[in-house]
Amino acid sequence: MAVGQCDFPDMPKVAGITLGTACAGIKQTVKDDILVIQMTERSTCAAVFTQNAFCAAPVHVAKANLTHGPRWLLINSGNANAGTGEQGMQDALLSCAELAKALSGADNQVLPFSTGVIGQPLPVAKITASLPEAIKNLSLANWDIAARAIMTTDTFPKGVSKVISIGGQPVTINGIAKGAGMIQPNMATMLAFIATDAKINQALLHNCLALAVEQSFNLITVDGDTSTNDACVLMASGCSAAPEITANSEYYAIFADAIMSVCKQLAEAIVRDGEGATKLMRILVKEALQTEEAVRVGKTIAHSPLVKTAFFASDPNWGRILAAVGRSGIENMVLESVQIYLDDVCIVRNGGRADDYTEEAGQQVMDKEEITITVKLGRGEATQEVLTCDLSYDYVKINAEYRT
Amino acid sequence: MAVGQCDFPDMPKVAGITLGTACAGIKQTVKDDILVIQMTERSTCAAVFTQNAFCAAPVHVAKANLTHGPRWLLINSGNANAGTGEQGMQDALLSCAELAKALSGADNQVLPFSTGVIGQPLPVAKITASLPEAIKNLSLANWDIAARAIMTTDTFPKGVSKVISIGGQPVTINGIAKGAGMIQPNMATMLAFIATDAKINQALLHNCLALAVEQSFNLITVDGDTSTNDACVLMASGCSAAPEITANSEYYAIFADAIMSVCKQLAEAIVRDGEGATKLMRILVKEALQTEEAVRVGKTIAHSPLVKTAFFASDPNWGRILAAVGRSGIENMVLESVQIYLDDVCIVRNGGRADDYTEEAGQQVMDKEEITITVKLGRGEATQEVLTCDLSYDYVKINAEYRT
Repeated sequence: MAVGQCDFPDMPKVAGITLGTACAGIKQTVKDDILVIQMTERSTCAAVFTQNAFCAAPVHVAKANLTHGPRWLLINSGNANAGTGEQGMQDALLSCAELAKALSGADNQVLPFSTGVIGQPLPVAKITASLPEAIKNLSLANWDIAARAIMTTDTFPKGVSKVISIGGQPVTINGIAKGAGMIQPNMATMLAFIATDAKINQALLHNCLALAVEQSFNLITVDGDTSTNDACVLMASGCSAAPEITANSEYYAIFADAIMSVCKQLAEAIVRDGEGATKLMRILVKEALQTEEAVRVGKTIAHSPLVKTAFFASDPNWGRILAAVGRSGIENMVLESVQIYLDDVCIVRNGGRADDYTEEAGQQVMDKEEITITVKLGRGEATQEVLTCDLSYDYVKINAEYRT
Repeated sequence: MAVGQCDFPDMPKVAGITLGTACAGIKQTVKDDILVIQMTERSTCAAVFTQNAFCAAPVHVAKANLTHGPRWLLINSGNANAGTGEQGMQDALLSCAELAKALSGADNQVLPFSTGVIGQPLPVAKITASLPEAIKNLSLANWDIAARAIMTTDTFPKGVSKVISIGGQPVTINGIAKGAGMIQPNMATMLAFIATDAKINQALLHNCLALAVEQSFNLITVDGDTSTNDACVLMASGCSAAPEITANSEYYAIFADAIMSVCKQLAEAIVRDGEGATKLMRILVKEALQTEEAVRVGKTIAHSPLVKTAFFASDPNWGRILAAVGRSGIENMVLESVQIYLDDVCIVRNGGRADDYTEEAGQQVMDKEEITITVKLGRGEATQEVLTCDLSYDYVKINAEYRT
């Protein structure tokens, strides 16, 4: 039910990063639900987390352990270990300890991540029993299997790979992500793991990641909910032959751009797989006073159930878009200055339906699977794009039946 | 598909207020879609309107005419006359002028109201052609017919009547409303018309109405959208034998309470008729620092598609409620202090699922048609209730097919 072509790419190896999966049988017993990622020694690692005040137990543990030179990620799907109180914290810590013991590491060198249903105890025994299998499977080549192991309501595995040249040497960046609903604001029921063989210190790596997430995962929305578990991790093994990326080097911008590009592609893949999605909508807000204003208008449109159901029906009901712009809370907005386009068809101008607009022209755009809604506010020069998908019967079905 | 019993009550006459309907054939030709309400001379009239920046043409005209001693309301369903630019303004003004001419009044004594699809030209000719019929039908007894004439996607007409005693004399308050979707924040695709035979000046009448709307229509939500056309009007004919209600009289509180009660009942009727609604959810937020905080938490829960679909499925997936509280943007919230109840069943305590909670107990509550979700924040003493409904297949269906 995903929008557009969503084939998993060929993912090359990333020197110094190995991945192993296993089936712990957390929610079902037919697919792998455990992923261990191992970073070589001297790797650097950055991460950003959900802003939900009630973040899940593994988020607390991962945040704390991030400062201790992480060597391993332990990820499970099928259970979020959120809303699980003190027991949840102990479960997250125990899982980390068991993995560390098996790998002769320190407990606090493991970052735990969980995704799935909220409020049910984490089946720690099942997880720890599956760890030997996941460790045995550790390999440079497991990116596709890893992308599948972290899926929950996803309908396809999400991966992006990019090779850039730093000082004449190839640097590889691989990213995988899961996420299909609850995507916004500021991350969602999404996890993303990005690894590179570049050499870069932790502070710089964090800067790259924070900026990239702001411009990618934080500008997508499926249903406006924000999860307790979202996280995006960026690991750098330093194993490539390329020179170190330093703040003042010419390589920094190249590397940061590439990380941004990987995050944007993963974010778009998540929207394409939005629960029940049949259409991808790019909401491009132009001529705003500041970027925040553009984001606000874009997200108000993107969150509107009325707009989203109209797109599901391929109905060019532009009045709903106009109404959403109007209620976005921007002061002193002038209706007469606002223009709205569906792709390149102008539908609103001079405070009402554009003179040259025809329902046929609007319908032609609406029948497409991917549509750009451009809103020109006529107030300034700031631009921002927000990605979302439509709201279909299947969104309701998937979320009504999630636990059954 | 409405939730609970929604019978139209017996509505007594309100002296000095007559109502007449007609079928102009705006969107269809089988039901009345025009309503004229006439107030006797010396009536007072207050109104509050949508806060959408792009309010519809009739809203602009009604706001302006409110200061000119309105005698008539002209309401049409089937077309919102919104997003219609300069032509829309002319159409609204022309409709008013035609009604005023027929009734030998001044153009600016008419307040126009429109509800229906956005962005299509108002068929003024059809409306003016139907005015003689509506005027001919003016009667004290037409409350039920009037409530039907203003319906759009509503599945039942909404009316509330109340008789109070002021100085030993009966004072009648009748209210009708339309609205089924797009209900919040701060009014919605809703229109409400309330009339009383009390004698009260315009300023006091406005105070009563503004407070009542804040505590009723502004605390309900169906889908988080806010319409371009919302309005709530309160008319007082002064025809009862009761003494005038003045600011310092003992009668003011009695009257204001009654108006509040009528507004709350109409607001609840709108949520019961939420598009596709199968459940009514009362979200009661307690122990907040201030009322605004309670409203914010309540509306975040009420807007969450994940919460709403879980209720549609009768699934006690309380983790989604907890996640919504967590992302409501309240600073320094402590998960361990939060308690959540489904009716009187405690589901969350001490940061996780309550020890004594059982899925069976949660399921028993979820199987009901009306459910109270109580959230105790453990921060202060402020309380607020927000009403909403669930999100069903039919919401998507109704809104996907609205224009077909």
